[in-house]
Amino acid sequence: MLFEDSLPARVEIIEVGPRDGLQREQVLVPAADKAALIADLAAAGLKRIQVTSFVHPRRVPQMADAEAVCAQLPAIPGVVFSALVLNLKGIERAQAAGLRNLDISLSASDEHSRRNANRTVAEALAEYDAMFAQARRAGMHVRGGIQCAFGFRRPDDVPAAQVLRLVEHLLHLGVDELALADSSGMADPKQLAALVQPVMEVARGTPVILHLHDTRAMGLANVLAALACGVRYFDTAFGGLGGCPFIDGAAGNIATEDTVFMLHQMGIETGVDPAAVATISARYAHVLGHADLPGKLYGLLASR
Amino acid sequence: MLFEDSLPARVEIIEVGPRDGLQREQVLVPAADKAALIADLAAAGLKRIQVTSFVHPRRVPQMADAEAVCAQLPAIPGVVFSALVLNLKGIERAQAAGLRNLDISLSASDEHSRRNANRTVAEALAEYDAMFAQARRAGMHVRGGIQCAFGFRRPDDVPAAQVLRLVEHLLHLGVDELALADSSGMADPKQLAALVQPVMEVARGTPVILHLHDTRAMGLANVLAALACGVRYFDTAFGGLGGCPFIDGAAGNIATEDTVFMLHQMGIETGVDPAAVATISARYAHVLGHADLPGKLYGLLASR
Repeated sequence: MLFEDSLPARVEIIEVGPRDGLQREQVLVPAADKAALIADLAAAGLKRIQVTSFVHPRRVPQMADAEAVCAQLPAIPGVVFSALVLNLKGIERAQAAGLRNLDISLSASDEHSRRNANRTVAEALAEYDAMFAQARRAGMHVRGGIQCAFGFRRPDDVPAAQVLRLVEHLLHLGVDELALADSSGMADPKQLAALVQPVMEVARGTPVILHLHDTRAMGLANVLAALACGVRYFDTAFGGLGGCPFIDGAAGNIATEDTVFMLHQMGIETGVDPAAVATISARYAHVLGHADLPGKLYGLLASR
Repeated sequence: MLFEDSLPARVEIIEVGPRDGLQREQVLVPAADKAALIADLAAAGLKRIQVTSFVHPRRVPQMADAEAVCAQLPAIPGVVFSALVLNLKGIERAQAAGLRNLDISLSASDEHSRRNANRTVAEALAEYDAMFAQARRAGMHVRGGIQCAFGFRRPDDVPAAQVLRLVEHLLHLGVDELALADSSGMADPKQLAALVQPVMEVARGTPVILHLHDTRAMGLANVLAALACGVRYFDTAFGGLGGCPFIDGAAGNIATEDTVFMLHQMGIETGVDPAAVATISARYAHVLGHADLPGKLYGLLASR
């Protein structure tokens, strides 16, 4: 009945902890430590890792070392590294740093777009075609991301019709994958399904990734709703770290170990070892100076 | 499609914070303060409140003041107070204290039953008929509770068949309501549905309450799965406080304000004001000496 019939055999987890997870931490993690963290995450079974963002170093100093991180990335067969970019300058930097996989994102919310990318949605969209063309010329794999797809300050301040227009624009350009981000953790399962279902229909063969934040405790409920809609790709961050520096009251991503634990318990494979991720989270709680992380499971699962 | 069709117009929330929420806190809240807390919860729109448990005062000193709390309960039209009991002695005490609504619970796990109630499941079941008869003679409304219905240490260490046998026994006795408790927060949405669906079938007209703990971040995902199975009653605790003192690594109940917020956003009425509950939670974080509570929303919603 119901959602059980829609549960897949396998789901792909994309670890965004080194980027989203660290981007508003007060402790600046040195590039070499980030590279070691990324290697540890790969060793825990994560095959896709978003390692950094090429954004303005004064606006997000936590990511100012993007080039240094890329220069120290471990070469691990079968593991794909990606980065987030918001403008042409970011694409140039990512290309120079040797990255082959980009998340080129724009926000569906004008207010968020101005805060996060210093431009309106229309301005971001006008630059998007040039960004995409530039990435394609460089032979890059492009994930087209839509931030605040489920609202910025309220669940109804970003109309679904606007998100669908952006989705269709990105699909028309030919992005390799589509990502919908609930950047402020607004979505509830019903609202999520109401948007994701039409997106899945227009996306057809193009993979749809969901990027969820657990601001309102609905993170894994939203994963369940997304599975019911046919979504098979999720962004997660170890320990549930993360949050956009330009969203008031933003909270962390859904935790990698919590998400993987639920999926495994429901018989859905991910290839990720939740205990190994939890051990990394427990170490980083210490590194980042937090008594506690937003994730629920790392304390129960971590070794030592 | 899927779960959306199963969403009801209304759900009933049973606040268990004064009992489950406080039962393993180091700070002992005075009975008068508990009575004031209960009045505040009622003012926030909670019409059913579990106010205490009549259990051994040396084993759960936080509930040693059960009689004093009951003596100071506010009289509020339309608000129903209940208490948890595990044995005949508890029923006698509840009756003497003037309570009319009891949760008579037993555990489906032998190990948990020994720790929590100092007897095996078989011994608890043998006493259950006498407890039920005694409560009925006293004209009490009886909710029959099954603890650890989804596992004790692992999701598979309590067979569903054993839970179903207990459910049928309680239904045969004639309990007014049935409650399934995920005392250690083991359940995942798929496992939950696999047990709740047959329970809903045998329960027919008898209301089925779900008592969930958010130990593994799956709390609201489990609520969503339960809604899809037709469940319309949920136990919750303000701030996400709670946890059985006799379960290692137990964590709090699903938070009242988080649960209500999700339900409301999905268009499901509860009659509860999440901001008013969040304000109580914020105050009790201070009262109980916690830097943070397990609930996600109280900080965002609390006034002042």
